[in-house]
Amino acid sequence: MNVDARHAILFEPVVIGPKTLPNRFYQVPHASGFGSVMPRTQAAFRAIKAEGGWGGVCVEYAPIAADADETPAVGADIWDEADARALGLTAEAIHAHGALAGLELYHGGATSANGSSRAARVAPTQRASERRWASLAKEMTADDIARLQRDWVRAARHAADNGFDIVYVYGAHGYLMTQFWSTVLNLRTDGYGGSLANRGRFWLETLEAVRAEIGGECAVATRIPLHGDSGVPGAETLPGIEIDDMLKLISMADDLVDLWDVTVGSWPEDSGTSRYYPEGNQRRWTRRVREATAKPLVAVGRYTNPDLMAQVITSGEADLIGSARQAIADPFLPRKIAEGRLDEIRECTGSNVCILREETFNHVGCVQNATAGEEFRRGWHPETFTPAAGAERPVLIVGAGPAGMECAVVLAKRGFGAVHLVEAEPEIGGRLRWTRRLPTLGDWGRVTDWRAVQLAKLPGVEVITGRRLCAADVLDYGAELVVIATGSSWRGDGVQPGHAEPMPGADPSLPHVLTPEQVCAGKRPPGRRVVVYDADGYYVGPGVAELLTADGYEVSVVTTFAVLSPVSDETLEGDMLRAHLHRAGVRVTHATTITGIAPGPGGDGGPWSAVGHDRNGDPWSAGCDGVVLVTQQASNDGLYLELAGDPAALAAAGIGAVYRIGDAVAPRMLSEAVFDGHRLAREIDSPAPATPLPYRRERPGLG
Amino acid sequence: MNVDARHAILFEPVVIGPKTLPNRFYQVPHASGFGSVMPRTQAAFRAIKAEGGWGGVCVEYAPIAADADETPAVGADIWDEADARALGLTAEAIHAHGALAGLELYHGGATSANGSSRAARVAPTQRASERRWASLAKEMTADDIARLQRDWVRAARHAADNGFDIVYVYGAHGYLMTQFWSTVLNLRTDGYGGSLANRGRFWLETLEAVRAEIGGECAVATRIPLHGDSGVPGAETLPGIEIDDMLKLISMADDLVDLWDVTVGSWPEDSGTSRYYPEGNQRRWTRRVREATAKPLVAVGRYTNPDLMAQVITSGEADLIGSARQAIADPFLPRKIAEGRLDEIRECTGSNVCILREETFNHVGCVQNATAGEEFRRGWHPETFTPAAGAERPVLIVGAGPAGMECAVVLAKRGFGAVHLVEAEPEIGGRLRWTRRLPTLGDWGRVTDWRAVQLAKLPGVEVITGRRLCAADVLDYGAELVVIATGSSWRGDGVQPGHAEPMPGADPSLPHVLTPEQVCAGKRPPGRRVVVYDADGYYVGPGVAELLTADGYEVSVVTTFAVLSPVSDETLEGDMLRAHLHRAGVRVTHATTITGIAPGPGGDGGPWSAVGHDRNGDPWSAGCDGVVLVTQQASNDGLYLELAGDPAALAAAGIGAVYRIGDAVAPRMLSEAVFDGHRLAREIDSPAPATPLPYRRERPGLG
Repeated sequence: MNVDARHAILFEPVVIGPKTLPNRFYQVPHASGFGSVMPRTQAAFRAIKAEGGWGGVCVEYAPIAADADETPAVGADIWDEADARALGLTAEAIHAHGALAGLELYHGGATSANGSSRAARVAPTQRASERRWASLAKEMTADDIARLQRDWVRAARHAADNGFDIVYVYGAHGYLMTQFWSTVLNLRTDGYGGSLANRGRFWLETLEAVRAEIGGECAVATRIPLHGDSGVPGAETLPGIEIDDMLKLISMADDLVDLWDVTVGSWPEDSGTSRYYPEGNQRRWTRRVREATAKPLVAVGRYTNPDLMAQVITSGEADLIGSARQAIADPFLPRKIAEGRLDEIRECTGSNVCILREETFNHVGCVQNATAGEEFRRGWHPETFTPAAGAERPVLIVGAGPAGMECAVVLAKRGFGAVHLVEAEPEIGGRLRWTRRLPTLGDWGRVTDWRAVQLAKLPGVEVITGRRLCAADVLDYGAELVVIATGSSWRGDGVQPGHAEPMPGADPSLPHVLTPEQVCAGKRPPGRRVVVYDADGYYVGPGVAELLTADGYEVSVVTTFAVLSPVSDETLEGDMLRAHLHRAGVRVTHATTITGIAPGPGGDGGPWSAVGHDRNGDPWSAGCDGVVLVTQQASNDGLYLELAGDPAALAAAGIGAVYRIGDAVAPRMLSEAVFDGHRLAREIDSPAPATPLPYRRERPGLG
Repeated sequence: MNVDARHAILFEPVVIGPKTLPNRFYQVPHASGFGSVMPRTQAAFRAIKAEGGWGGVCVEYAPIAADADETPAVGADIWDEADARALGLTAEAIHAHGALAGLELYHGGATSANGSSRAARVAPTQRASERRWASLAKEMTADDIARLQRDWVRAARHAADNGFDIVYVYGAHGYLMTQFWSTVLNLRTDGYGGSLANRGRFWLETLEAVRAEIGGECAVATRIPLHGDSGVPGAETLPGIEIDDMLKLISMADDLVDLWDVTVGSWPEDSGTSRYYPEGNQRRWTRRVREATAKPLVAVGRYTNPDLMAQVITSGEADLIGSARQAIADPFLPRKIAEGRLDEIRECTGSNVCILREETFNHVGCVQNATAGEEFRRGWHPETFTPAAGAERPVLIVGAGPAGMECAVVLAKRGFGAVHLVEAEPEIGGRLRWTRRLPTLGDWGRVTDWRAVQLAKLPGVEVITGRRLCAADVLDYGAELVVIATGSSWRGDGVQPGHAEPMPGADPSLPHVLTPEQVCAGKRPPGRRVVVYDADGYYVGPGVAELLTADGYEVSVVTTFAVLSPVSDETLEGDMLRAHLHRAGVRVTHATTITGIAPGPGGDGGPWSAVGHDRNGDPWSAGCDGVVLVTQQASNDGLYLELAGDPAALAAAGIGAVYRIGDAVAPRMLSEAVFDGHRLAREIDSPAPATPLPYRRERPGLG
């Protein structure tokens, strides 16, 4: 290693109890969707981070008992020895790369799902959870308290016996420990409620018991929540624990803890997206923990900048750079810093698609790193690429959007020496060219930026912009392999989910009817009152609404959904997004379907009416000066279909195969377009590259 | 067997292609949550139905390819031979009881989730699904069509090789076949779109190819959808296929099919709940299929009445009684009919908790049959009970609600000879005493009725009503084992999710403030304008609203949720429930939180104001004459805590143990209360009965 002096501090070891972390890069516990039921998938997913240089690598939350069951989400259950042995594969795989392995022993208390176990939920005080319907929990008895503490100790023993170096007593993020700490959620009158010492007792006793069991072998860690910015909606995970009390609790427990792992605010703040939180947003809060402890401290903050990371460590405010999302986006970040390859760091966009995958009960995914979660399943490595058979063939990729860019990078890394990436527009980026210009969405542009840098560095790739190819151009191009990545467009005809017919009056050649792309390209409706009709449910409708509001329009969003932008709830942005738009003066009409745009004043005047029906099917209309249709997308698949439909012409042109990737196949999330481009390049030399190869699944034996 | 003559027809065999079903009881394919990843759990779950007398038993939908992946739902994937071998365990287990095993080969097309595979969705025409956000599908190419047909044939071969007798070509319920049939969803201009024959071609070709592969060995079945009652909202699964066209398609395919399995309407109609659909609701539609085919026909209809079943077969309108929900509620229904034990049939309540479990990605559950899904996991058999150790101890169960009744039945079946079930109210049933009297909820009373009959028949149980026991009474009772099942009550203090503090003005001793129980007991507010405040989200708020509306009140429901009764969407009732209330004139205010009840006119006059805030946090109020608080429940746990808190008194009274079950532990769904009572009785002789024993989980090998 030849570390730049300004980053050298990041590579200094840290002693945590009986163990030593080799450097300051610490992958905090975060969900993967693999748990202990996919042990080899889990092991490969975590091992890649150790290989990439993270000195500490943790598994996700590990429920210690059946009444902390997270089904249908996949937790790393450690209910018995067989579970622990399965998780031990991960510890072993992490050790193989010289890192320490952490396991986050966990109980959710009142928020546990218990979908498989069907056990009663437990909590300090009987209460309803905001998170789950009908989830009233049992008020824990003294027996319950003793039982869970025994479970924690048993699980800790199993963790130690199976190779884990760092063992958490975890209940932050609104889980059981938080529930005990809270003056709102803990109304007990026994020794576990009332005073701060009493509210901390369950946690302190558990720490003590776990330390007594495994403290000589493992580092004992705990995760603590601090109240963040009180202005953030959705802060229900942290009611009734003020920061000063939390600092007192830290002092009380400091002798029992080898590693403090700090979370801030509710989850939407702690895992704040780039739309609403800057890098290092948590610093002003995590600094305060230093007031209470001199022990090693992990701080998260969606850190992607090595200089800022070094500054955080140098300042002493934290000892370890904690990361979940950046470690997913680039498992090799530490090695790239160590080797000065800063321009190769795939920076997290902060779009939280990883969390959306988790919230929808799927395994991890990433918009920047298509290999995340695919290490065992598909044998993909983020930095290593097997040479492709037939790499001597010249390749033409049409369209330099996310899928096309990714495909070009991977093909070049697999040894293709003549990859032409041809883009019709004056710059690469595809959909992102305009998406990244919507208010708050700038960091999504990192998807383009990283690929732009790699494309420039890879000698096998030539990027050509401003050249729109028709089928004849493609046939004449001289390529043997053609990949069509022409993306998708927003429809202007008003076709929408549940309505396959075009909408009367929906014609974006008229001044008062607009597509999102037209708005982003500068088209504006006459007048000042605009209806943005959102049948899509994610970022485009709100983004366009915010753009037009900033331009002085009076914007009313009409959405088919019962809440505005329900997809944003899966990325933890929903509450912020809605508060943001409300403050900006955007009016919202919910659960309403627009079925036509007609002349004549609607409900509240205006030259045009958006007409439709409300949630009861009753007629609805609104007067306006213009309508933006965020209704449905359509693949730009004409070029592909024309080429694929003429095999004779392809043969005559010497083109062996034409494939398509990304939104040109089917409009999907950005992460899936990148994945699709990556997938094709990884499998370009398979027998039938258009069809994904089977991936490995872990299945029970039939014994 | 000594079958009553009027039911004898139900026990006649039916030839289906090369196989013979032994009788007319046919468990149609339905989800279990076990798929092919929990093969032994699946096998045990289906085998119990074969043991109970169902002549045909099918596994749930079996995705034939990775682009039909249903993750995070669990489908019976049959992507390769290893999957097929896993499913073969189920065929073998079904055969052991003399029944035929069916496998429903399936592709979801545009509705596939593909959460694990991350494959692009496919469909006849690119379109958005109403079911999934951002789920635009790829328009299938000729290659895609051929590929999926090959996959179907391969999967059929695997099914036949692994013991299945009945192989489906399945795409009803809005899945791929339906998408091809539809004039709305299929806009193709090639040989697979346009005319009816063209729209049917994909299905017909697939049937033909599957039949060519395995027709000599297996019966070929298909499931077909008929348009049901067009007045039902949520019918999106069946756009563009009129019944006459469907009958023509049946005629076209009749030579290729050995067994027709008929579904009616959209899923909420086909699996209609007892709240909105009577038993046999589908008859008028399924009868029409007889016009098109003389082949064996399966008809579903939530049949629970053996006389009606016999009538359906006798009439010739169908050949087989198809069942999903009733076969879950009572796997032994056929044997009970055969043996004339009609009073032992556990009738399905039609509450669709089985579907709620599936919709929330959990394994099957049932309000009537606590053993459903627990056959392998916990080793429970619905009809066989191991004798308990210590069964000579006299048992006192306090509270004859769902948990208490179930516990008493199971304890008696396990050999306890002196079980006293003591209820304070004049009749048994607990919560169900008033729930079943809410409009549309009558059939839920079957939970009480079945248990009432069993309790009367079991010599070991004595039911005592109208006797309220205090702690001293319990100590004096003479029991050695005490089980407290005192249920829960609705709070009148306005404590609600997210608000642990009582609500100012919430005092149900006042005339204008009411709990749901008070309303059901006859309390009525003065005046005529009532606000029903629903922070619960299931059936109680709407039920009370409907009750008061029927009494002439002007009812406004204010709910914290963005849709009224979101839980009802999981039971497929949401659309019907909301249309029902809208027609009844109930007004609904969404996403609004009430934080106080204050004197003085609110927004629209009235002596009282419900005050709070809307979804943006802005102040909100409404004038009214009274408020019903459907806010939060609380366990009636005083008796338990008093007893458990005095071990000396228990010892002195000769009471060895006190347990509690059901809502007295934590208020939950009805199914979970029954489960809890059952669980305790099954494990009453375990080392620590209060804590559930570990259950068996199927885990991958670590090879």
